[in-house]
Amino acid sequence: MEDTYRLVISCPDQVGIVAKVSSFVSSYQGWIVEASHHADRMTGWFFMRNEIKVSSLPVGLEEFKAAFAPIADEYGMQWHMTDSRAPKRVVLMCSKESHCVADLLHRWHSGELSANIVAVISNHEDMRRMVEWHEIPYHHVPVNRENKQAAFDTMQELFERYRADVIVLARYMQILPPAVCQAYAGRAINIHHSFLPSFAGAKPYHKAYERGVKLIGATCHYVTEDLDEGPIIEQDVIRVSHSDNINDLIRLGKDVEKAALARGLRYHLEDRVLVHGNKTVVFG
Amino acid sequence: MEDTYRLVISCPDQVGIVAKVSSFVSSYQGWIVEASHHADRMTGWFFMRNEIKVSSLPVGLEEFKAAFAPIADEYGMQWHMTDSRAPKRVVLMCSKESHCVADLLHRWHSGELSANIVAVISNHEDMRRMVEWHEIPYHHVPVNRENKQAAFDTMQELFERYRADVIVLARYMQILPPAVCQAYAGRAINIHHSFLPSFAGAKPYHKAYERGVKLIGATCHYVTEDLDEGPIIEQDVIRVSHSDNINDLIRLGKDVEKAALARGLRYHLEDRVLVHGNKTVVFG
Amino acid sequence: MEDTYRLVISCPDQVGIVAKVSSFVSSYQGWIVEASHHADRMTGWFFMRNEIKVSSLPVGLEEFKAAFAPIADEYGMQWHMTDSRAPKRVVLMCSKESHCVADLLHRWHSGELSANIVAVISNHEDMRRMVEWHEIPYHHVPVNRENKQAAFDTMQELFERYRADVIVLARYMQILPPAVCQAYAGRAINIHHSFLPSFAGAKPYHKAYERGVKLIGATCHYVTEDLDEGPIIEQDVIRVSHSDNINDLIRLGKDVEKAALARGLRYHLEDRVLVHGNKTVVFG
Amino acid sequence: MEDTYRLVISCPDQVGIVAKVSSFVSSYQGWIVEASHHADRMTGWFFMRNEIKVSSLPVGLEEFKAAFAPIADEYGMQWHMTDSRAPKRVVLMCSKESHCVADLLHRWHSGELSANIVAVISNHEDMRRMVEWHEIPYHHVPVNRENKQAAFDTMQELFERYRADVIVLARYMQILPPAVCQAYAGRAINIHHSFLPSFAGAKPYHKAYERGVKLIGATCHYVTEDLDEGPIIEQDVIRVSHSDNINDLIRLGKDVEKAALARGLRYHLEDRVLVHGNKTVVFG
Repeated sequence: MEDTYRLVISCPDQVGIVAKVSSFVSSYQGWIVEASHHADRMTGWFFMRNEIKVSSLPVGLEEFKAAFAPIADEYGMQWHMTDSRAPKRVVLMCSKESHCVADLLHRWHSGELSANIVAVISNHEDMRRMVEWHEIPYHHVPVNRENKQAAFDTMQELFERYRADVIVLARYMQILPPAVCQAYAGRAINIHHSFLPSFAGAKPYHKAYERGVKLIGATCHYVTEDLDEGPIIEQDVIRVSHSDNINDLIRLGKDVEKAALARGLRYHLEDRVLVHGNKTVVFG
Repeated sequence: MEDTYRLVISCPDQVGIVAKVSSFVSSYQGWIVEASHHADRMTGWFFMRNEIKVSSLPVGLEEFKAAFAPIADEYGMQWHMTDSRAPKRVVLMCSKESHCVADLLHRWHSGELSANIVAVISNHEDMRRMVEWHEIPYHHVPVNRENKQAAFDTMQELFERYRADVIVLARYMQILPPAVCQAYAGRAINIHHSFLPSFAGAKPYHKAYERGVKLIGATCHYVTEDLDEGPIIEQDVIRVSHSDNINDLIRLGKDVEKAALARGLRYHLEDRVLVHGNKTVVFG
Repeated sequence: MEDTYRLVISCPDQVGIVAKVSSFVSSYQGWIVEASHHADRMTGWFFMRNEIKVSSLPVGLEEFKAAFAPIADEYGMQWHMTDSRAPKRVVLMCSKESHCVADLLHRWHSGELSANIVAVISNHEDMRRMVEWHEIPYHHVPVNRENKQAAFDTMQELFERYRADVIVLARYMQILPPAVCQAYAGRAINIHHSFLPSFAGAKPYHKAYERGVKLIGATCHYVTEDLDEGPIIEQDVIRVSHSDNINDLIRLGKDVEKAALARGLRYHLEDRVLVHGNKTVVFG
Repeated sequence: MEDTYRLVISCPDQVGIVAKVSSFVSSYQGWIVEASHHADRMTGWFFMRNEIKVSSLPVGLEEFKAAFAPIADEYGMQWHMTDSRAPKRVVLMCSKESHCVADLLHRWHSGELSANIVAVISNHEDMRRMVEWHEIPYHHVPVNRENKQAAFDTMQELFERYRADVIVLARYMQILPPAVCQAYAGRAINIHHSFLPSFAGAKPYHKAYERGVKLIGATCHYVTEDLDEGPIIEQDVIRVSHSDNINDLIRLGKDVEKAALARGLRYHLEDRVLVHGNKTVVFG
């Protein structure tokens, strides 16, 4: 992967946006190595993502951003520009299920994940040894009915101390308080172990088993205050049959959870996800 | 495909069922060309399907059934034995969407579907020409608020006149009355254009679009009095993205509907589906 | 679907192409409803497809093309611009297997396929009645060892008479002569009943069965003089098991063939496929 | 999972096998919790697998086997009976790619894999730390042109020292010598990073990229002397597009390799795979 700036834009659709933006980039001799557009006809909204080769530009990120700002103002753009050389800082949160955490840690360890996993927070001690082997700090923050507020205060301190860009709930079985959901809107990612909107809430595999579905799934989505209702980033499914009992569903589901979370997180880390209302545009 | 008798059994699980049944078959020199078993540990129920080569048996179906009856009694079996040479009689029901009907008609016409499609009933005239080309009678039975009871009486007469073994709602957009649901319990098959239990009821593609799911699906299930709540036979999904609008979902969904219905119906026609409670065992 | 002009471009990559093209479109107040780009880093080649709303332009297709030509020259572009209101003229070719033809005919009949199927050519009479029901001319052109050249001359006359834009080999089991392959390079589409490059040539399902693969597939590709070696447009697979015999593979494979051919053809008809060397860029 | 004996049989097909075997089991009050049969019509061969609850039997494994032996003789059976409480001993072999090893180690560590991973052998040192964290012995056995025979002698000593039941080549990039292939026929499992028979041999992702396929895959198969030609246990694929370069294929392929290997190995560990000629029956 080469070094790029990622320019991500959403704004009301109108004639000439692509011309304006690409002419701007081209006026700096910027080399666009990947470009994606989407015009949503239902909402009249336009979405755009450009990856521009760093080495092709005669100016740095801040100067480039400053030069672009007037265009953004003119078109009423929500936008950001990021540097692929500055990987996002990720805080993982987990409970007792290890498969998603182990999967992400290995992807990170083997260089597949363009992010820094800066800390892991858990309400249990179970995964300390695995996490510390990766030389990542592990924080045990137990949560129970009595200490809930204090526990979440501690977490928020940790998010700030580690300057978290992204929070990943890797099968973290606690509900984040509204303040955290708001503070990290569009930056907190959950993996839910069902094909949403089916089987939101607790024990989705048990519900899937009861209903007798022939496929089970997993959903990677942004966390919002409404449980399992946030914008969906990625989903996947796997076939099951009458011969699979609940433990089989749980086992088979793990692989789907890992895959959906890894893909969804990757999209986020590479600034490929644009949230609009309760939906996402994913330039995969 | 060779000619077989299909012996389909469900009963409380206990030691020795397979031995008993297979010894019975073997005592007639019956050649079992396909055998499937399932023991459901949660409910303590046992399911079994055997295909026995007709030519290997010295007796006919009725005599064979009579000989088996005492074993069925002894083990408290629900069972039936069918002859693969006697294809089931299918009545198709449709509205204006042609894709499922056209797909099933072609499978039938090309000899892929081991069934007789004996009639098509529709609340519209749209598909008469296509159906009649296949030399299948077409009955236009309009349904509206005023004539509902009369219309369903007409249908039930048609079901009886055509001695329907199976009723297939191939995107028939009317709800069958409870009496029909009961009379054809386990023999009336619907294709719903969503991955149930998500998006039950009307306009599932619109709901899927609103929710921003990344996969859409279809569900083939037995009709019960509770709309879209019956035992699921088969499901399938297809990937969609932000660039797909509602018309795209509808178009992409058609292929999934056709596939799920064709597979589910095939399972039913070959006596591969055993209903237990609100779930199915499918010996695919 | 709204009316659009489709501008499809491939050329050596360089800075400023998107800016140039989009500024050109924008200078006419052209509204780009869909835009896709791809820069191939290995070959240094750039690919682009824009859909521009007809009603947004003050000029017609020919004038718009004439105005664009100098830009195309400047950048060394291979390009074409088509009008979505002028559906391509398709000639289907088939032998005895009906599933792909029936599938395409129904998609066409129900308005899903944005093309005119102007004729069907077959070396057998089997599908005449089905085709003629659709009010499409059917030409029986038998091919055998003796008459090969004459038969292909007849076909080429038919292609010309019907002004075919696209030739679709819908399980047409004859090999087209080099002259036809060349004349219709990038416009003749075949469906091969295997996951190429596995099992090229005759009897792929038999070969798949022999090898014991756990998935079978189908490949939609452009026809070239090298049998089953042309640029791949679309592929798909389906799971099989030890319990599926050759007839099962053939039956299961049909659904995959239909799906891969319908998708691949759709991409072609909408000018979404750009051939480069022996590979394709598909802006799906 | 409950404790079971697994009785796995293959023999020439004839009337009465199921009756014979199930009557035998039933005569001991053996409770069959899972039963699978397959009759291969092409070869006239019969395959069978029964899982019998240990606690339902009044005798131990050896006595049960001894009692069954005469039946096996009578029907010319190839058979074995294993105890689910005696997990197989697995030796992993790897080179520098860590994803398959890390995946299997985590499955083992989290209790998902019913096996003992007793040692890891590699021609590189790279994975020593990861393996030793799991408290599994790691043996570095470099292989080069000069020491090949000596190296493989060392390996065979290790296989024997660890009493390996299964050898898993988890992206081990060396070819095993014929003697090892023969000694571990049906017990050495490889994951090949292509959808075989496409792209056998070296650099399959490069070949897939060159050919422009639209899906890439992985194949889990038994090792034989003919490279990548052994009986296939499991395969899987993932969709790719023109925008994926070779590194993308390699990255996407890793997830498919992990999945296909984990599933294939699981089938083997649970005695669900029966090899016949160069094909497998997999009672999944």
